[in-house]
Amino acid sequence: MGSDLPEKGLVLLSSWPSMFGIRGVIALEEKGLEYEYREEDLGNKKGPVLVHDGRPICESLIILQYIDETWPGADGAPCFLPADPFARSQARFWADFIDKKITDAGANLWMTKGEAQAEAKKEFMESLKLLEGELGEKPYFGGETFGFVDIALVCFASWFHTYDVSGSLNMEAELPKLMAWVKRCQERESVSKALPDPLKVYDFMLILKKRYGIE
Amino acid sequence: MGSDLPEKGLVLLSSWPSMFGIRGVIALEEKGLEYEYREEDLGNKKGPVLVHDGRPICESLIILQYIDETWPGADGAPCFLPADPFARSQARFWADFIDKKITDAGANLWMTKGEAQAEAKKEFMESLKLLEGELGEKPYFGGETFGFVDIALVCFASWFHTYDVSGSLNMEAELPKLMAWVKRCQERESVSKALPDPLKVYDFMLILKKRYGIE
Repeated sequence: MGSDLPEKGLVLLSSWPSMFGIRGVIALEEKGLEYEYREEDLGNKKGPVLVHDGRPICESLIILQYIDETWPGADGAPCFLPADPFARSQARFWADFIDKKITDAGANLWMTKGEAQAEAKKEFMESLKLLEGELGEKPYFGGETFGFVDIALVCFASWFHTYDVSGSLNMEAELPKLMAWVKRCQERESVSKALPDPLKVYDFMLILKKRYGIE
Repeated sequence: MGSDLPEKGLVLLSSWPSMFGIRGVIALEEKGLEYEYREEDLGNKKGPVLVHDGRPICESLIILQYIDETWPGADGAPCFLPADPFARSQARFWADFIDKKITDAGANLWMTKGEAQAEAKKEFMESLKLLEGELGEKPYFGGETFGFVDIALVCFASWFHTYDVSGSLNMEAELPKLMAWVKRCQERESVSKALPDPLKVYDFMLILKKRYGIE
């Protein structure tokens, strides 16, 4: 991290195509907080870091909870996590599920070929169908309000085009309710501001493939 | 899960050598809660499940937070997580670090040989040394009181003998402060009650090796 970080205020260090950094941007925007965004070197494997008054917080889901707990009622917005302990446990479970199931399977759609890619495709689509089932007829994962699981998942939306093309998927046709939920989320300024252009992400993926010598 | 689960009360489903199940036992004991422990089939890869009034909660760190949030002041015990958001984020970071670094490296100490085992040994010891540094001169990871990170890590103590023998480690000599912390934790009834006999765990590991055909 740079040594020129301010001792006061909020700085998010991330790299623009990072889903995990996008989570941080959405959370900061949702809470209406003033912050500085700093683009870090691409290609390193570090996740985003939120620096608050000089103190660093790592891991995107931990950053979301930190923001939620530090500014619970900021800008009149509801909390990301619900108040009820059981509902909180379920939100944490699904966010953890996204990290474990969607991240690697999604990356393997463009990083692998043949059998490994077929395996990734199966896990990716099955996991998203489970998530679509969990969403059900609700407008958001948490119910009526945009929250923790919504932020945890919608950050992948800019990558959906890359996944679709690389894995020969048809997410629009196969996951209609989930894709309607993506559009609903994108109507929020926080989300539309945070999500990069899918075509720019696709080009970035091509650069990564070249850099790592992936055929 | 069995269909004979009670609609009221607390049931922890786990398997006795599971570190993640041990976390649940310590948490329930620390809060002084009445609960039923049910031994599940060994060998399946599922983690523990806490069933509260018929509703299941999965993933051990999520279970700890559920117990902490549902019974914040139970039995006069302090909360597992501190009140300050930054301190909470740090506790969550270290618990997540334990899950990512200690679990797999520990398993690979007895599941692999040669180069893979040497790699596991390096990662395991380096990670524990980082944790020992984080503990510093404090009695517990959270400071004066036994808490979230203590529960997340001490559950591995019954496996330390197995790791020592399998990986030719000498944790007692190389991690003196961490081992003193283990003994301090074991003076708590919750911990001594939850941790199985290290020799029994070692025998269980030998059974697993046979079952999976590991030389």
